[in-house]
Amino acid sequence: MKACVLYSGGKDSSLVAFILKNLGYEVELVTLNFGYYPSWKAAAESSAILGFKHRILKAKPHVLEDAVDTIINDGFPNNGINHLHKYALELAANNYKLIADGTRRDDRVPKLDFNEIQSFEDRNGVEYINLGGFGHKSINHLSKTLFNVKKELTNRENNSDYEIEIRFLISKLEGEEMAFKLFPEHLQSRVIGWRENE
Amino acid sequence: MKACVLYSGGKDSSLVAFILKNLGYEVELVTLNFGYYPSWKAAAESSAILGFKHRILKAKPHVLEDAVDTIINDGFPNNGINHLHKYALELAANNYKLIADGTRRDDRVPKLDFNEIQSFEDRNGVEYINLGGFGHKSINHLSKTLFNVKKELTNRENNSDYEIEIRFLISKLEGEEMAFKLFPEHLQSRVIGWRENE
Repeated sequence: MKACVLYSGGKDSSLVAFILKNLGYEVELVTLNFGYYPSWKAAAESSAILGFKHRILKAKPHVLEDAVDTIINDGFPNNGINHLHKYALELAANNYKLIADGTRRDDRVPKLDFNEIQSFEDRNGVEYINLGGFGHKSINHLSKTLFNVKKELTNRENNSDYEIEIRFLISKLEGEEMAFKLFPEHLQSRVIGWRENE
Repeated sequence: MKACVLYSGGKDSSLVAFILKNLGYEVELVTLNFGYYPSWKAAAESSAILGFKHRILKAKPHVLEDAVDTIINDGFPNNGINHLHKYALELAANNYKLIADGTRRDDRVPKLDFNEIQSFEDRNGVEYINLGGFGHKSINHLSKTLFNVKKELTNRENNSDYEIEIRFLISKLEGEEMAFKLFPEHLQSRVIGWRENE
């Protein structure tokens, strides 16, 4: 059975991909893109190194525009990011019967609550799997065991989170300063290989 | 790193054991027992067939007695079973740094909520993992792919759930009729091997 993982190149989505592969699924990694900026490249690179098939999930630009409106109006990114994540899941459900993401037990955004998950599965006739059984301590430990991880400041080239295209559009509409205010610089972990030639 | 799975011989706890093994943990399966009835035998058998080390987690009889009091007073088993499960986790935390169980996303009993999990991890300096990322549809599908499963009516010999010793003690104290009222007969799935000589 095919399984689709919403993939950013980070340790969480890499871990859920690894777990699903070991459970016997034919795993494909997909990254949402709105055509504003090719932010999927880092994810595609991590995916290739790990040996997974990677696809771009082509999204409608107006969905990003709406999310950016929300974020600017809210003054914080949470609702906009959640909106994009739910949209990505629905889009993936057009082509896959099992959709997974790297959401952990202690994640807050993006995250679906229990009822949203039930509704997503039932409306689309799909299965949804995430890392809801794992906390950050276990995931940090596993990621060290399994992956070569590079920690660096997020920039447009090394990251495939929703953040990149959101920032790109905010910069264009409102200027760099607003983009930095809403998304301060931060360290990110990117998976750049298996730990032991696994 | 060692990982302890609270194990009943059912498909959920077998699945979490399989996932953790594939993640590189040295998995040991443990089954709580209060010394009232050797209900751990079915779990030990499944464990042996799957090739895992199995241990009995020896528990204090008064904890079972308290749970049975609760169940008889409540008129339903949920609170008593949750109490035993939390006790089993605390007991396991004396000997292991990672404790897991087969609780699914859509399970209701036994189940720890988010704050109980955080508290359990922090108080004991341990990690806790469950199947909170998986719903029953995915688990049923995976269990068919991975395991030989036997469906049969629960009895004292084919089951290692908390239910068995609880029923045993209720029968002794209040008679068989009360035990059947609180725990009606039901079908259970027991793992009796790998699907494809895995």
